[in-house]
Amino acid sequence: MSARIALLATLALASSAAAQQPLDVRYRADATRLIQAALADSSAWNRLATMTDRFGNRLSGSDALEHTIDWVMDEMRRDGLRNVHGEPVMVPHWVRGEESAELLAPRAMPLHMIGLGMSVGTPPGGITADVIVVGSEDELKARGAEARGKIILFDVPFTSYGETVRWRTLGALAAARAGAVAALIRSVSSFSMQNPHTGAMRYPDSTVTRIPGAALSVEDAMMLHRMQARGERIRVHLAMGAHALPDAPSRNVVAEIVGSERPDEVVVVSGHLDSWDVGQGAMDDGGGVVAAWEAVRLMQRLGLHPRRTVRVVAWTNEENGTRGGQGYRDAHRAQLDKHVLAIESDNGVFRPLGFRFQGPDSSLPMMREIARLLEPIGAGRMEKGEGEADVGPMIALGVPGLALDVDGTKYFWYHHSSADTMDKLDPNEMARCVAAMAVAAYVVADMPGTIPHEVPPRER
Amino acid sequence: MSARIALLATLALASSAAAQQPLDVRYRADATRLIQAALADSSAWNRLATMTDRFGNRLSGSDALEHTIDWVMDEMRRDGLRNVHGEPVMVPHWVRGEESAELLAPRAMPLHMIGLGMSVGTPPGGITADVIVVGSEDELKARGAEARGKIILFDVPFTSYGETVRWRTLGALAAARAGAVAALIRSVSSFSMQNPHTGAMRYPDSTVTRIPGAALSVEDAMMLHRMQARGERIRVHLAMGAHALPDAPSRNVVAEIVGSERPDEVVVVSGHLDSWDVGQGAMDDGGGVVAAWEAVRLMQRLGLHPRRTVRVVAWTNEENGTRGGQGYRDAHRAQLDKHVLAIESDNGVFRPLGFRFQGPDSSLPMMREIARLLEPIGAGRMEKGEGEADVGPMIALGVPGLALDVDGTKYFWYHHSSADTMDKLDPNEMARCVAAMAVAAYVVADMPGTIPHEVPPRER
Repeated sequence: MSARIALLATLALASSAAAQQPLDVRYRADATRLIQAALADSSAWNRLATMTDRFGNRLSGSDALEHTIDWVMDEMRRDGLRNVHGEPVMVPHWVRGEESAELLAPRAMPLHMIGLGMSVGTPPGGITADVIVVGSEDELKARGAEARGKIILFDVPFTSYGETVRWRTLGALAAARAGAVAALIRSVSSFSMQNPHTGAMRYPDSTVTRIPGAALSVEDAMMLHRMQARGERIRVHLAMGAHALPDAPSRNVVAEIVGSERPDEVVVVSGHLDSWDVGQGAMDDGGGVVAAWEAVRLMQRLGLHPRRTVRVVAWTNEENGTRGGQGYRDAHRAQLDKHVLAIESDNGVFRPLGFRFQGPDSSLPMMREIARLLEPIGAGRMEKGEGEADVGPMIALGVPGLALDVDGTKYFWYHHSSADTMDKLDPNEMARCVAAMAVAAYVVADMPGTIPHEVPPRER
Repeated sequence: MSARIALLATLALASSAAAQQPLDVRYRADATRLIQAALADSSAWNRLATMTDRFGNRLSGSDALEHTIDWVMDEMRRDGLRNVHGEPVMVPHWVRGEESAELLAPRAMPLHMIGLGMSVGTPPGGITADVIVVGSEDELKARGAEARGKIILFDVPFTSYGETVRWRTLGALAAARAGAVAALIRSVSSFSMQNPHTGAMRYPDSTVTRIPGAALSVEDAMMLHRMQARGERIRVHLAMGAHALPDAPSRNVVAEIVGSERPDEVVVVSGHLDSWDVGQGAMDDGGGVVAAWEAVRLMQRLGLHPRRTVRVVAWTNEENGTRGGQGYRDAHRAQLDKHVLAIESDNGVFRPLGFRFQGPDSSLPMMREIARLLEPIGAGRMEKGEGEADVGPMIALGVPGLALDVDGTKYFWYHHSSADTMDKLDPNEMARCVAAMAVAAYVVADMPGTIPHEVPPRER
């Protein structure tokens, strides 16, 4: 064996050994650099504060959202990210208008209310009607014809979001079927300080009259329930100026670190920029989108250029349409087989625990090697679970998904309410979320193997 | 020795032995009955819910307070309590009026504000001025002439109520001295969900211009501070219709179980019926006054008639004047030497821990015997400490005081805000507060000895 052949053989062996090294060994040094850089200061939190203090909340169709999008693109260019651009989508343009709910009997007092997103408004003078409080659909059915012409209040205690949110989404449909003129719900919230919570509702059955839907604070809903239990007649005046305008132009913001070897292979790291029209949308999901962006900015700053492209996407219109995620899927459909992973943070940038992985079981061991790199910041968990809403459309076509998992204890205290503000987020916790996203995105963008696409259900 | 004399000697010995029995031995059976009766149902919580749902909050001078007073007296008579009557006092009549604060720059948005109690209003058109945010009085002084014509925002984080409340009480004075046109404070609160907190302020120096004072939510105060830190000019429009009307008639409600042996000796058990004009005043202090009342109702219902009189007092005007407590002291001055103890609950009827005792050190061991009776409900603590505000005037004249001590973790989350509502109180915790008040009041009203009055400071 010549010396040259021996050398080549040695190199091949070394390369193959490196390829077979567990990812948490191979990428320990890079991960440590990313984590240290993320934890070194409060730059993610500060950037989010600047954004949310300057632009406030960011509902689809609002100037605030589009101004935020412009600002984000300017800042991304300043960060030195590549291919910064907006990808146009049309989004629903729902406007809240003036709104109020007033208790007239058994005593007069203003109620703490917020209209549900996508609701129709009341007639101009509002609706004045007696209120029937129910705790379930069965109870509504049991009240029978009594519901006709009334306002139905669904006072259902929070159990889990998945279970309780259906009153928000479909309460107005159930109430309209019973002949009611409006639907109220107890806010979908696990703890309340008189902050009512909005969120999307739907009118899925075109044969049923569209009636207005609004949430009361947990406190007020419980009070009305107690009043009913005492046999008191409850009368409410509800006025809502809510209405839908024609769809409005918006954009997903896209920026990249271009892959050094396989630029056409893409890791998406993302959050959504739009929010409901209350509070600052700091937790939902300003924090997620800024953390994703900061994760990519850190790679750029540290000179970590992975083999594949890392693409930060700031989604538009998660809250009331998911048109951003759908538009991206449609615009990039031909490239989705080269999308190796779609990461999103949309649970608040609280203390990160790890990730939920939606992809083939066979890749879970490899994903757990990546997770081990995050054990130093307490984010070493990697479990199977569903990806987030905006990346849902591409996950449905087989792209593997990764959702940042965090301590969600207080998420539904603030969610979709005026209390979703900067002060609820901790700079160090947010920095750890940045680190988790950065490490996961970087390793998957650089690693020798890839995660196989699952055959999408419709093609099975 | 004749048989008769021997019998008398034996009886005297037995009686003396009973007198020397520790109170927690002597009253164990009675205390157990009171505790079991209190914990048997949610009647205290239900009565409080009925009261606060029906009448809402109860500011001095309001119809709601006077209607509540009428209702309480009716109910007390129905309970079979004796000598139910109102004792007239004149109370301040401050009215909030319409109020709002709007951020004009760096961006337009409504702020979450509430005027401070007893504040003057703004001129009819409101005040529009730049805002200077300071974190301390030194910082205000350092800004010097810059404060002239501005609105000063004191953004001071909550440490303890005693320490932080001075910004609420005296912030407007400090701002006016610096030439400011209005004073804002960060709400005096340990946790916020956009609920601003009111409370009394004062104008103690008649040589200084009275300027309006209001609280912002913690969130908004912090946001303005961040904006200033970024060098942004902050401009606010503040409009407050607050004004004082002539003093109004009100009443302390008094009801009794008349003592079986020493009816002129009195144990007061109390809370205050008035509240700020937001939320339900359920925690501050509807819960305290209903717990005191229920404690006495339970004794009555169980046929426990102590040797001394137990007098429940539902104070008026604790929040902005303490005229109830002062009026009682003045009306009963001649009988105060026969007031053996003044109990009050004004820390929320959360999980009770025990009592703070304000009285002679020599009585502490005896008070601790009483506290031991409350160990089964976790309320066995008895420490030296200050009595509550309404009983303060009689304590200052030597009457011993007892303040119910509770788990105060969340007290300043809700205090003086719209979030002070029924749902924040737990029926079982409230029942334990009732039990603690009942046992303490009953034992002190029945026990052989008394707590000596301390010589009031002014007579030392």
